[in-house]
Amino acid sequence: MKQANKKIVVIGGGTGVFTVLTALKPHFKNLTAIVTMADDGGSTGILREEFGMLPPGDIRRALIALSASDNKMLANLFSYRFQEGVGLAGHTFGNLLITALHRITDDFEQAIEEAGKILLAEGKVVPVTLDRAQLLAELEDGQIIKGETNIDIPNHDGRIKIKRVWLKPEAALNPNARKAILEADLVIIGPGDLYTSLIPNLLVKGMREALQKTKAKVAYFTNLMTKFGETNNFSASDFINTLQSYLGKEVLDFAIINNRKPSPRRLAGYIKERAEFVEPDLGNIRLNKNFMPVTADLLRPKGFVRHDSEKIAKAIRMIL
Amino acid sequence: MKQANKKIVVIGGGTGVFTVLTALKPHFKNLTAIVTMADDGGSTGILREEFGMLPPGDIRRALIALSASDNKMLANLFSYRFQEGVGLAGHTFGNLLITALHRITDDFEQAIEEAGKILLAEGKVVPVTLDRAQLLAELEDGQIIKGETNIDIPNHDGRIKIKRVWLKPEAALNPNARKAILEADLVIIGPGDLYTSLIPNLLVKGMREALQKTKAKVAYFTNLMTKFGETNNFSASDFINTLQSYLGKEVLDFAIINNRKPSPRRLAGYIKERAEFVEPDLGNIRLNKNFMPVTADLLRPKGFVRHDSEKIAKAIRMIL
Repeated sequence: MKQANKKIVVIGGGTGVFTVLTALKPHFKNLTAIVTMADDGGSTGILREEFGMLPPGDIRRALIALSASDNKMLANLFSYRFQEGVGLAGHTFGNLLITALHRITDDFEQAIEEAGKILLAEGKVVPVTLDRAQLLAELEDGQIIKGETNIDIPNHDGRIKIKRVWLKPEAALNPNARKAILEADLVIIGPGDLYTSLIPNLLVKGMREALQKTKAKVAYFTNLMTKFGETNNFSASDFINTLQSYLGKEVLDFAIINNRKPSPRRLAGYIKERAEFVEPDLGNIRLNKNFMPVTADLLRPKGFVRHDSEKIAKAIRMIL
Repeated sequence: MKQANKKIVVIGGGTGVFTVLTALKPHFKNLTAIVTMADDGGSTGILREEFGMLPPGDIRRALIALSASDNKMLANLFSYRFQEGVGLAGHTFGNLLITALHRITDDFEQAIEEAGKILLAEGKVVPVTLDRAQLLAELEDGQIIKGETNIDIPNHDGRIKIKRVWLKPEAALNPNARKAILEADLVIIGPGDLYTSLIPNLLVKGMREALQKTKAKVAYFTNLMTKFGETNNFSASDFINTLQSYLGKEVLDFAIINNRKPSPRRLAGYIKERAEFVEPDLGNIRLNKNFMPVTADLLRPKGFVRHDSEKIAKAIRMIL
């Protein structure tokens, strides 16, 4: 099979999924994004509460990444956030579009499909679960934090580590997500916020079994920067060991770790938000039989400290 | 020139423009809708106030009528009105789309163009003016009513006739509307609410001059039913004579009047809203040198008392 025809599944949420899909889109024809349904903040949180629907924000970002439309305005429009209006300020246009389509079709997955048609999305976006559940976290001091946003933007002391996270009530894997994983040639997890974008996918009942059962290679992209309140002081091994503890053994085939440190000048912009460079401490990673951590320069040459699309694409072509 | 290539301009607002455009779309390639900017009610009114923008509602309806998209969901989506959500309930999705595009482009006409691209609109929709103005009415008892919605949905005694309407402040004709009128082969006014959808277009400074100057034939479709508070007890001659008083002499070439009365059973549905059949009283119409009123059966065979699309198309092909 030509590489371009291989089936690739990306699991995550937030901007990480966007980055990976954008990197893969020019090279691969068969892309599926499986996105977390734990988001409960901002525009998405309001729609979730007022419409009793699943959160549209991560769906929207993935659809935009997959859009093949020449109409640049369409992507701008989907990402546009209203600044004015008593009832509109803060809402993202694409979220409202998915909400309206959900109400018209009365089917969340069909609403995503219709939004994809409008954007001419090449690839599928699949909610990890169709069940509504809240993400909870227990901190090392015993505190319980309720809701993805409260974990993500901590009111609590951000230096206290997260002990564990779970979903309440339990949520079951979306059959379409399961099917995509079982049929995939490669499953990519991350990059993304560990506890709030990645692990919520792994908490869904049936996900670990599907990842154990699939013949696909499973690869994890560690983050470039830590996040205060979530992965404070984490090195690459902390990311990997934590993910492994939720994934179960023998699932992960590769971890792809950035080894290029940004200049002090670029890092200076992150001091305020207490984010630090993730050190590639290979020696601390727990190794399994089939698991191989690899390091490479994955850094975007300038600007924000982000993964470079072309470097991600190269790394993925290497392991496919 | 083949009839299909003739340039047709439709002037109005509300559902009347939608009906005429829908009738013309299969037969003519060169359609322009010039729509009133006086609407200040509902979703449009809120957006107008909160975003300081021109009203999107009539634009939206005309764009949907011109859409050539196979995607039926797209028209449903544009027309969808949110039922839930503290800030969203009552807003029409298409209005929010035009609002977001307006903010992104910072240009109302470009926003309309971009919305048209998404809908694959065949034809143009042009706001009659780019100036913001309010519609005011003086009733026969001297009362002044401010705002299109207050005139349209009267809190005042609906039996008291409207003496005159005007815009405050004055608004100037959009140059693109002027251009379309001057280049047209046929200009159609109405059907539509006389004081709130049609005359607000004629009040715009430069409109009468453009209609006097154009070589296009100018035709007016009278309404099928009266509207309580606006055209209470009006017969066809009242519609035509009133319109003429705002148009000036020698502008109108034809008035096209329905002569088919719906069954008492169909009319029974209109008793509650105090709407009555408009009698085709040809004898009371003031005639000018070049003006000819004609009557025909324009009634939709069943259902709501509306103009029939095919009959409108036939009438227009006759006078072209």
